[in-house]
Amino acid sequence: VSQTLDALTRAVPPETILTDPAARAALATDESKIPGDCLAVVRPVTEAQVVAVLRASAEHGFSIVPRGAGTAATGAAVSRADQVVLDLSAMNRILEIDRRDLVAVVEPGVLTGALQAAVEEQGLFYPPDPASSAISTIGGNVATCAGGLRALKYGVTRDYVLGIRAALADGSVVDLGGRNLKSVVGYDLVRLLVGSEGTLAVFLRLVLRLIPRPAAFETVLASFETVEGGLLAADALLAAGLLPRALEYLDRDVLAVVAPALGEKLGDRVQSRLLVELDGSETAVREDAGRALEVLGKAGAIEARRARTAVERDELWLARRSVSKTVRTLAPAKKSEDLGVPRSRLAEAIAAIKAAGRAEGIRVLAYGHAGDANLHVNFLYDPASPQQRAGLERAIAAARKEALARGGTISGEHGVGLLKREAMRDEVGPRALDLMRGVKRAFDPDDRLNPGKALPPHETDGD
Amino acid sequence: VSQTLDALTRAVPPETILTDPAARAALATDESKIPGDCLAVVRPVTEAQVVAVLRASAEHGFSIVPRGAGTAATGAAVSRADQVVLDLSAMNRILEIDRRDLVAVVEPGVLTGALQAAVEEQGLFYPPDPASSAISTIGGNVATCAGGLRALKYGVTRDYVLGIRAALADGSVVDLGGRNLKSVVGYDLVRLLVGSEGTLAVFLRLVLRLIPRPAAFETVLASFETVEGGLLAADALLAAGLLPRALEYLDRDVLAVVAPALGEKLGDRVQSRLLVELDGSETAVREDAGRALEVLGKAGAIEARRARTAVERDELWLARRSVSKTVRTLAPAKKSEDLGVPRSRLAEAIAAIKAAGRAEGIRVLAYGHAGDANLHVNFLYDPASPQQRAGLERAIAAARKEALARGGTISGEHGVGLLKREAMRDEVGPRALDLMRGVKRAFDPDDRLNPGKALPPHETDGD
Repeated sequence: VSQTLDALTRAVPPETILTDPAARAALATDESKIPGDCLAVVRPVTEAQVVAVLRASAEHGFSIVPRGAGTAATGAAVSRADQVVLDLSAMNRILEIDRRDLVAVVEPGVLTGALQAAVEEQGLFYPPDPASSAISTIGGNVATCAGGLRALKYGVTRDYVLGIRAALADGSVVDLGGRNLKSVVGYDLVRLLVGSEGTLAVFLRLVLRLIPRPAAFETVLASFETVEGGLLAADALLAAGLLPRALEYLDRDVLAVVAPALGEKLGDRVQSRLLVELDGSETAVREDAGRALEVLGKAGAIEARRARTAVERDELWLARRSVSKTVRTLAPAKKSEDLGVPRSRLAEAIAAIKAAGRAEGIRVLAYGHAGDANLHVNFLYDPASPQQRAGLERAIAAARKEALARGGTISGEHGVGLLKREAMRDEVGPRALDLMRGVKRAFDPDDRLNPGKALPPHETDGD
Repeated sequence: VSQTLDALTRAVPPETILTDPAARAALATDESKIPGDCLAVVRPVTEAQVVAVLRASAEHGFSIVPRGAGTAATGAAVSRADQVVLDLSAMNRILEIDRRDLVAVVEPGVLTGALQAAVEEQGLFYPPDPASSAISTIGGNVATCAGGLRALKYGVTRDYVLGIRAALADGSVVDLGGRNLKSVVGYDLVRLLVGSEGTLAVFLRLVLRLIPRPAAFETVLASFETVEGGLLAADALLAAGLLPRALEYLDRDVLAVVAPALGEKLGDRVQSRLLVELDGSETAVREDAGRALEVLGKAGAIEARRARTAVERDELWLARRSVSKTVRTLAPAKKSEDLGVPRSRLAEAIAAIKAAGRAEGIRVLAYGHAGDANLHVNFLYDPASPQQRAGLERAIAAARKEALARGGTISGEHGVGLLKREAMRDEVGPRALDLMRGVKRAFDPDDRLNPGKALPPHETDGD
């Protein structure tokens, strides 16, 4: 311990090192709430300080857990007592927003929402929009390939990362990619680092692709008499050639939960809702919203409303936005899975997942991104009950199996972290896991960057 | 030799093996025209046959050059006399076009143009559009991360590859990714294979992301009195919030070359032109084209025309499309580089590259994708002149240097192959090259998949 602390003290200024127990505990865990600890937290403010910490790690053999704002839902930012947390939240400068090159150059600790606001002020747009954008960092978004609400039209974080300056495990610094949307020189290490959960390198700066800011957007909310109605209507919108930037689905179970909290009396006939957001030029959006209403009507909507003002728009979004918070109040505890299935299998996957929960006596609420078929499945349970705890584990395993059986994924946008390491074996398979381990060895042969995350332990060892 | 042929004969049906000298020579080279040879060509029609060839390769130690249609400009598909060419052009089935999942599942040998046509017939759209789409395969496009004309708005090939079934060097088969736009389970091996030039794995089938087909598009051609005019107008369009799907720049030198071939008398005042293509709904496109004309006018266009019919549209594109062919006739030989620079540096990069050519007595024509700042630079020379040959090499080296000095890339969309292996050292740097070599080892430890391509030889060996 004291050797590591001595090494850190020699490497970086004392004010960047936090060792008090409260800070250590707070910064050693993430949204997963898995308890963690650490030897110390280093909160660097310069690239040179990051490099110095990595060199000290290489020399003294301690391992490092890089961290943004700690919003990971998977334990990706949970550290052990023998590790050093590298908290990048103070490296939070927007270095450049270039309107001609259509890029932003940022440090990893910038809050994604702050970046979005800064570029929008200049008439530009950074499309990825994870629900956590107000509190999560862009470095964390890149480390997990954050998805969010606008993926159907705009893609995910990886589609907007053009260049990465990264510090490697040995303390060397590489500049990968650059400012060009097109560049095909050697293997695509930029996209390989996206989603690598801090296990391959530490980000020092990121070059992000921007686009012109859409001039306008419109929001439409439609209700349906059947549970599948909202999903079929989503299909109908796409078949009509519309490409909404958001397409959110809520079924009766979820609506019944949020309605009281919103003071809404949910009509008996409403079995599902679809929230649609379109963007583009003023004229295009007005026209598209009109067409959307028409398509939704033909698809059987019993009600469809278009927000006329920003206030109305917020109202339409309120049900969707309040789900996560409201659901939390329904049971002593909840676990959330972000599963994905091909869009055509969404309805049957939701039904199967709910049935799996019922079989275990676990209440399940499912909602999510109907556009990109990423489902947020909430399992409500009482952790005080051993029976519920066991049932929960079986229900989660069954839900993952239902997703995989349909060609889906066990994580659409949260990643693996600690929580899905075993489960990922069923999705990735042993041979591809070998390849991933080979990649890890190429970047971090001594396993000092976020060890034990993002990949399952070897079956032969007990890690 | 005969041992390898025996092994192939045991592995795959005789009708899939080509050994006659003409076929061997033809299929052992690509658009680079670097002469090649091979022991044999295998043209499999099933996944099992590909696997059988890879197993034979693992057992008998011969190496393999995977190949699509041979349109690589870099020598990526050139083989040596001791290698086996794996020609995937007969695995050319479109297995599925799913309108609900918005994906196409295809074999690697499908021509990209055939795929585009098939999905458009169903109201869908595969946006990447390399100039070679009529003759190149989708597998080759993925292997090089092909760019093309629509990258500014729609991104490049990597942005549309969701899943890959691949055969590895040891003959095992992995299914990477899937049908979901969002999936973050383990490292992103899908995007790692995109652009890997056949050196990491052989593609068996590809799952491609589709979007609804835009209902309409419009084409506008504008002329400017200065060389920079066309580029500044491109900036102005983006600054006005327009996001054209194509934005092609031609300067006076290029226009002067193509005008006679097109029977056009180029006015004295025309120093550059910009070709703009917008897509979207009928209304949106009409409005956007109107705004584009307005912006182009304010940006100093001395003439701006909007195509009213398909015939007019083809006419506007004719100059752009005929450049490559016309340029070929101007000198005994030409070499083409596809350099990239940040968009804000395009004008100065073009000027510097031309100056570098002049200094060596080499005529240089530069044109390209102003939207994504990917320049096609043509060096015209006489291969019979030793002086010209030497000057050519120096001019190319200087042009690459000018691109890199501005934070650009030595290949926007063609890749490395054999031709840019040495030059890539200046862009990628030794540490990142180490990482790439580590990735190669993880996938292909015995270096049997397209050895010697896409990465520079080790400095210590003579490969």
